[in-house]
Amino acid sequence: MTRIVFVLVAFAALAGAVATMAPVSGQPDGEAAPISGVKIPLGYRDWRLISVAHEEGNLNDLRAILGNDGAIKASREGKLPYPEGTIIARLAWSYDPLEDSEKAFGRRQSFVAGPPKNGVQFMVKDASKYASTGGWGFAQFDDGKPASEAVQKTCFPCHATVKARDFVFNRYSP
Amino acid sequence: MTRIVFVLVAFAALAGAVATMAPVSGQPDGEAAPISGVKIPLGYRDWRLISVAHEEGNLNDLRAILGNDGAIKASREGKLPYPEGTIIARLAWSYDPLEDSEKAFGRRQSFVAGPPKNGVQFMVKDASKYASTGGWGFAQFDDGKPASEAVQKTCFPCHATVKARDFVFNRYSP
Repeated sequence: MTRIVFVLVAFAALAGAVATMAPVSGQPDGEAAPISGVKIPLGYRDWRLISVAHEEGNLNDLRAILGNDGAIKASREGKLPYPEGTIIARLAWSYDPLEDSEKAFGRRQSFVAGPPKNGVQFMVKDASKYASTGGWGFAQFDDGKPASEAVQKTCFPCHATVKARDFVFNRYSP
Repeated sequence: MTRIVFVLVAFAALAGAVATMAPVSGQPDGEAAPISGVKIPLGYRDWRLISVAHEEGNLNDLRAILGNDGAIKASREGKLPYPEGTIIARLAWSYDPLEDSEKAFGRRQSFVAGPPKNGVQFMVKDASKYASTGGWGFAQFDDGKPASEAVQKTCFPCHATVKARDFVFNRYSP
């Protein structure tokens, strides 16, 4: 019995360590976003990669889409709609020419991610709570603080253009 | 004792499931790369994200850099050289304009990852085995098959331009 307890304590300690592990970026204790009430999910920077993108124009960034386990499973299977509890994270960084590769290639060749830019965005699937916005709660955080209500209001109208894909622009990249 | 055994068997079953879990992309039973002998690491597509990039010119792709646990830890801490056993993976996809966001923004705005392109590349740190190439074994796989020896030979000379960064171009993106 002692050993059983030891094993269970070890289990509990491990679970506790995972649950309280500080994320390397993000502010999990930060305020909730206006409108949706979404908070920055704990440990999202450790989530797996769904895909990558580059935005031109005013955004001018390189970005990565990460997903929690439900998001990864659904996006790999290509099934719509996404299941309850899905969370998709969009990280972005400035779009910077890489001098190292200019040296290697003898011409401008590579653009890499610089400092974080354009905030971090989340989509959280809760069909009843967010029924008025396609079943998704949207949120943007700039430097760990919720963006203004005006900014938060721009999320859904843009994503509404891909209603046929359950309001999600990205697709899984194998 | 029965319960201890049960718990241990459950542990072992879980460990086995993790070890034999089929990766969603990659060909773990594929051939070793010429020169380095590096094989496609099991489950690399589930590794965490180090950074993202865009290559212009003939490469013309969007790419993601993933790392095993050692790579993530070292790149987050910014410590050089990378520890033994570090593996860094470079995935890439075609650089495709996204019609959905053109509709949303009213102009060309987003470039997203299309089908896989330019193979998958790995750097494996083993200072003694790969002493002649900076302590790294390099490999590229196209559609799961090792690229030609001529292609494999191009890895190290290019990475040698960033010798001061232990031959690694990428930096961790928070």
